Amino acid sequence: MAPTLLSPDCSTSATTARHLIPLTRKLLCPTTRLVSFERSLSSPWTPSLCLSPSVSKYRTAVSAADSSSMTTTATTANIIDGKLISKQIKDEVSAEVVRLKEATGVVPGLAVILVGSRKDSQTYVRNKKKACEAVGIKSYEANLPEDCTEAEVLRHIEEFNKDPEVHGILVQLPLPRHMNEERILTGVSIQKDVDGFHPLNIGRLAMQGRDPLFVPCTPKGCIELLHRYNIDIKEKRAVVIGRSNIVGMPAALLLQKANATVSMVHSYTKFPEEITRQADIVISAAGVANLVRGDWLKPGAVVIDVGINPVDDADNPRGYRLVGDVNFEEASKVASYITPVPGGVGPMTIAMLLSNTLLSAQRIHNFK
Amino acid sequence: MAPTLLSPDCSTSATTARHLIPLTRKLLCPTTRLVSFERSLSSPWTPSLCLSPSVSKYRTAVSAADSSSMTTTATTANIIDGKLISKQIKDEVSAEVVRLKEATGVVPGLAVILVGSRKDSQTYVRNKKKACEAVGIKSYEANLPEDCTEAEVLRHIEEFNKDPEVHGILVQLPLPRHMNEERILTGVSIQKDVDGFHPLNIGRLAMQGRDPLFVPCTPKGCIELLHRYNIDIKEKRAVVIGRSNIVGMPAALLLQKANATVSMVHSYTKFPEEITRQADIVISAAGVANLVRGDWLKPGAVVIDVGINPVDDADNPRGYRLVGDVNFEEASKVASYITPVPGGVGPMTIAMLLSNTLLSAQRIHNFK
Repeated sequence: MAPTLLSPDCSTSATTARHLIPLTRKLLCPTTRLVSFERSLSSPWTPSLCLSPSVSKYRTAVSAADSSSMTTTATTANIIDGKLISKQIKDEVSAEVVRLKEATGVVPGLAVILVGSRKDSQTYVRNKKKACEAVGIKSYEANLPEDCTEAEVLRHIEEFNKDPEVHGILVQLPLPRHMNEERILTGVSIQKDVDGFHPLNIGRLAMQGRDPLFVPCTPKGCIELLHRYNIDIKEKRAVVIGRSNIVGMPAALLLQKANATVSMVHSYTKFPEEITRQADIVISAAGVANLVRGDWLKPGAVVIDVGINPVDDADNPRGYRLVGDVNFEEASKVASYITPVPGGVGPMTIAMLLSNTLLSAQRIHNFK
Repeated sequence: MAPTLLSPDCSTSATTARHLIPLTRKLLCPTTRLVSFERSLSSPWTPSLCLSPSVSKYRTAVSAADSSSMTTTATTANIIDGKLISKQIKDEVSAEVVRLKEATGVVPGLAVILVGSRKDSQTYVRNKKKACEAVGIKSYEANLPEDCTEAEVLRHIEEFNKDPEVHGILVQLPLPRHMNEERILTGVSIQKDVDGFHPLNIGRLAMQGRDPLFVPCTPKGCIELLHRYNIDIKEKRAVVIGRSNIVGMPAALLLQKANATVSMVHSYTKFPEEITRQADIVISAAGVANLVRGDWLKPGAVVIDVGINPVDDADNPRGYRLVGDVNFEEASKVASYITPVPGGVGPMTIAMLLSNTLLSAQRIHNFK
């Protein structure tokens, strides 16, 4: 399955996107890449504290040379701009929503079921609602108390399953502990499973010659970023770090469907850095800050960082900041392309959710 | 999911199996392994035809030394005996069938649907029937003509779905070309999908924290061989060659569920030998004779060869013989364990089908 977002009718704007991006690229030449100034200073075999004055003088001169060379020839990865791409996708979805409505009168609808009152979940749901409004998708909501029963949640799912105005249903995770997540997610009609978490969808994703009705949003977003930046996947070595049901595993299946040779790295992997260093494409979804260092990467690798990890930061008014799994400073000196955190994969998830909801409405109404 | 075949009640015979096998093992010490006699003679840098008599004499002495060392210290892989293991499994299934019948009166039943008159398919179906009889599983058959309709096949599937005496349903593949394989296989009730090919089963196999109702027979057989020979999977590097829906892909998912670090090699993989050489466990299901050479393997690797490929053989009355994907002669000098072809994975497929049918009957009748 080619995980392209666009229906054939959107191909013009996709071409525009592809056309714009190369203008901002820098030429990559991994073989002439130099060790960075910071690295040469902190290099373990020349500890500055024990240098004699003459050696110290020599070191300073070398460092200056390194530094000046770096500014002219050292490479810095191209930034994969998830904000920009997600904006383009939302614009494309918005245009398609108008086209669908004008031709058929149908307005795509997305229903979100929120159980309990977790602040983060409430924020996510609010953001999804706003994003729907912005592209003309109607949103529906069921807010259920923390102590409601599984049967009540399933009853709401069943109502949305039957409602012809709802084309996508999303159950906000995590659910309260007394509920069986599998049973609830499997209750969502596979025709409206815009999250793509139904095992039937995952099975089809894994199988050759089968296509899922929906691809989970975050991994779909990762692959879409590669497509929009014209990064080939076929015949490439790819490493996925982390094997969660919602990101790592489906990302690996998508890469594999696109004919990459995929290795999955996880908490039981010995020497993950050795395997990762072989990859042309790295997708990291481990949820561990600073896990992927510069020396984990092959020069010129493409790095997609799905991690969103809070780390203490006294300078930040909230007392923390969000970072990815990848040490950006190091990795951006080795990679050819890299996603920042925030502003990389993050904005793509909602964009893909909107895209899946549109796709569902188009499919249900047999609109092409 | 631990892909063990045995119910707790069978644990005694499993222990016996594990106890028997180590007695036939040889001590493996890859670091002291020597190049084999045949290899040193055919070594490209000492072509025997252009040696001077003195050099030739020297070479003979060295070769003799190599040869004598080889007989005492060179390693030859342990043979993983699929015939023996499948026999043990059939005996265990047979004992469980008796126990189930005595306790509940239920006899497990397997229905096979055969469409058309392909000779190889007829042979497979006959063998399955015989194997069922041997362990006390009742077999049911529907033989349909080549030109029957998809609806007719689906009607037979539906009948078997409803029949309480049938616990497993198997549609013999390949189907005639005018039929949609996906639609037909998806018609089999997931409760009776003993082949494990339903996308819902594959999805559950792929997902963390979910278990399929059935694991496809051939890959389950591969993993069972590893278990019965006490070969650890957890934390090991594994390479699966080939990504078919019936072997390669589910084998990779099983290895991954057992916490190996898995890479999938396929026809779009560049330098497959480099990746394969990193693996502690290699499962080859490419269907290409002689694909995996000795130098594709890490010394001490465990090699499971799923390939069954006919190659011309004038000495054979049939004019051909069956070989695996792996060059056995070369590989057995490098690997620590290896399956032969025939007599390796082959006999395991039917054994696992019987095991899945028993499992289904036990589950449907809530018998433990």
